[in-house]
Amino acid sequence: MDRLKKIAIIGLGLIGSSIAHATRRGKLAAEIAGHDASTDVVERARVLGFCDSLHDDVAGAVKNADLVILCTPVGAYKSIAREIAPQLKRGAILSDVGSVKSAVIRDVGPFVPKTVNFIPAHPVAGTEFSGPEAGFASLFDGRWTILTPVKGSDPGAVQRLKSFWQALGSQVDVMNAGHHDLVLAITSHLPHLIAYNIVGTAHDLEKVTEGEVIKYSASGFRDFTRIAASDPTMWRDVFLNNRDAVLEVLGRFNEDLSQLQRAVRNGDGKTLFDLFTRTRAVRRAIVDIGQDTPSFGRLPFQVYVPPKKDGAKKGKKNAAPKKSPPKTRAKPKRRAK
Amino acid sequence: MDRLKKIAIIGLGLIGSSIAHATRRGKLAAEIAGHDASTDVVERARVLGFCDSLHDDVAGAVKNADLVILCTPVGAYKSIAREIAPQLKRGAILSDVGSVKSAVIRDVGPFVPKTVNFIPAHPVAGTEFSGPEAGFASLFDGRWTILTPVKGSDPGAVQRLKSFWQALGSQVDVMNAGHHDLVLAITSHLPHLIAYNIVGTAHDLEKVTEGEVIKYSASGFRDFTRIAASDPTMWRDVFLNNRDAVLEVLGRFNEDLSQLQRAVRNGDGKTLFDLFTRTRAVRRAIVDIGQDTPSFGRLPFQVYVPPKKDGAKKGKKNAAPKKSPPKTRAKPKRRAK
Repeated sequence: MDRLKKIAIIGLGLIGSSIAHATRRGKLAAEIAGHDASTDVVERARVLGFCDSLHDDVAGAVKNADLVILCTPVGAYKSIAREIAPQLKRGAILSDVGSVKSAVIRDVGPFVPKTVNFIPAHPVAGTEFSGPEAGFASLFDGRWTILTPVKGSDPGAVQRLKSFWQALGSQVDVMNAGHHDLVLAITSHLPHLIAYNIVGTAHDLEKVTEGEVIKYSASGFRDFTRIAASDPTMWRDVFLNNRDAVLEVLGRFNEDLSQLQRAVRNGDGKTLFDLFTRTRAVRRAIVDIGQDTPSFGRLPFQVYVPPKKDGAKKGKKNAAPKKSPPKTRAKPKRRAK
Repeated sequence: MDRLKKIAIIGLGLIGSSIAHATRRGKLAAEIAGHDASTDVVERARVLGFCDSLHDDVAGAVKNADLVILCTPVGAYKSIAREIAPQLKRGAILSDVGSVKSAVIRDVGPFVPKTVNFIPAHPVAGTEFSGPEAGFASLFDGRWTILTPVKGSDPGAVQRLKSFWQALGSQVDVMNAGHHDLVLAITSHLPHLIAYNIVGTAHDLEKVTEGEVIKYSASGFRDFTRIAASDPTMWRDVFLNNRDAVLEVLGRFNEDLSQLQRAVRNGDGKTLFDLFTRTRAVRRAIVDIGQDTPSFGRLPFQVYVPPKKDGAKKGKKNAAPKKSPPKTRAKPKRRAK
């Protein structure tokens, strides 16, 4: 792809900061401009140094940008779109990274000027960490990014955005927004809802202490807590904005679970064994196509060290983590039996 | 602990072979005897070399053993107990590694001679791989093993078994079987049931292809498939043998999920956000006590290379994996949309 003059990243959390790191790694833009609604996040981004310019006002960040990517929770898109619309450069691409796509088209579409190419996108990548410290350049390597062009999207612009994501390390698919939302409802939204739910159930059980749940978590529960540690604001917005597809797959999940519950109650070993054998093959297929390796997408994060002023070009991109991820607000209380 | 003269391991899958590796690593027994109902597994164990003696008949394996550990699926315990009971050495400890404990006491207890110390146990450790190739010496390091002594268990024998598991690298807790079964129902059995269920639901959806589910699995689904790849026979037996506790926690899970479903339907962002914030703290607590690190318990497996005959004592225990884990029976079919 041609090098961009300016990319504007709106929202500097895990995904936004990772796009900045990967853009710099690939030398994909002359200027990386960043904005975040939180002045605290802007300050932390300044210290981390992954943007060339940081802006307190979103309008200033997008000015003259060839590519603008919204990386905030999707609930914030509408007001951002309203604010930046008049500032967008003629011929610019406006894109995003939201986990839902129909709602994004509904919220952002009406504000986009005819002179701007609006192409929603979703990199299917992430970790359970959030915030600007959580980003790292290789987050998208080998993962899939889905573009969901809207009616009348310029094919040339779609191709440019595709090339950009490939240059970030990603593989790219194109599909319509409705199908995206259903595919993600089953592969991502339902798993998260279930994980949040089971962690909540365990937390509330009276007969088992919180300490016991935590101590013996290695037996399966642990993997659910990893998913259930994802950013609460982002995930609230996902469920508020993909309601129909989530309820559809949840309905199917509940039907299947009732059947499984009956098999447990009736001691129906054959039904259990048959399901457990079938699901194993799905796992094998995922490993076979390289979508799960021990560290795949699970690197805690990497700290970007800006190039030295003496002309050394390379940052220390693969440094070991130097800080713990941000602490969550509260420690769980030990519950009496 | 005092070195054992002979340990007998009945069942040479992931856990049995790992006990053998860790026993050898710690020089905890003069003789490691092994038996498996499958002659194929016995042959593979012979090639891997983690036992000092291998026996086609289970009675031969347990003869003169100070410690006998059942490592088969729990559904096989009853008939094994009946067969080995007359052969057990006076003063020996009979233990196991099953994921349920009340049913084990029910099935095995009646056959145990008064001269033998029956102390059920459960190492809370595992990976999604199975078979003798899957075992490795460090599987139990830092994990928890739960002992559930029966009425009248000799305290001295309980202490000896505790020391043995500590020497294998594990931390040890003691509790009654009923409480164990409830704790594991929420931390392990329910998560597995849910994971199996969601992978099955995804597999059966008509509107989303199997290929899409696999391709975009990195967004959450992947972690469920790892759990849902666990050994089908073992897990069938878990659900057949811990029915009441599983149905109890499943009932609570369903109640909570109905509430969450209503929140999604009603667009109740506050309920969603509050739950998602609360669950995050549970994750933090698990990481804080060291029960999840990038590779913790997720080492694919290690290949034990027996000591060379020239007197070199050390096997190549940390070699990179040389073979893929055993293939599952069938590849998932690509389903037409």
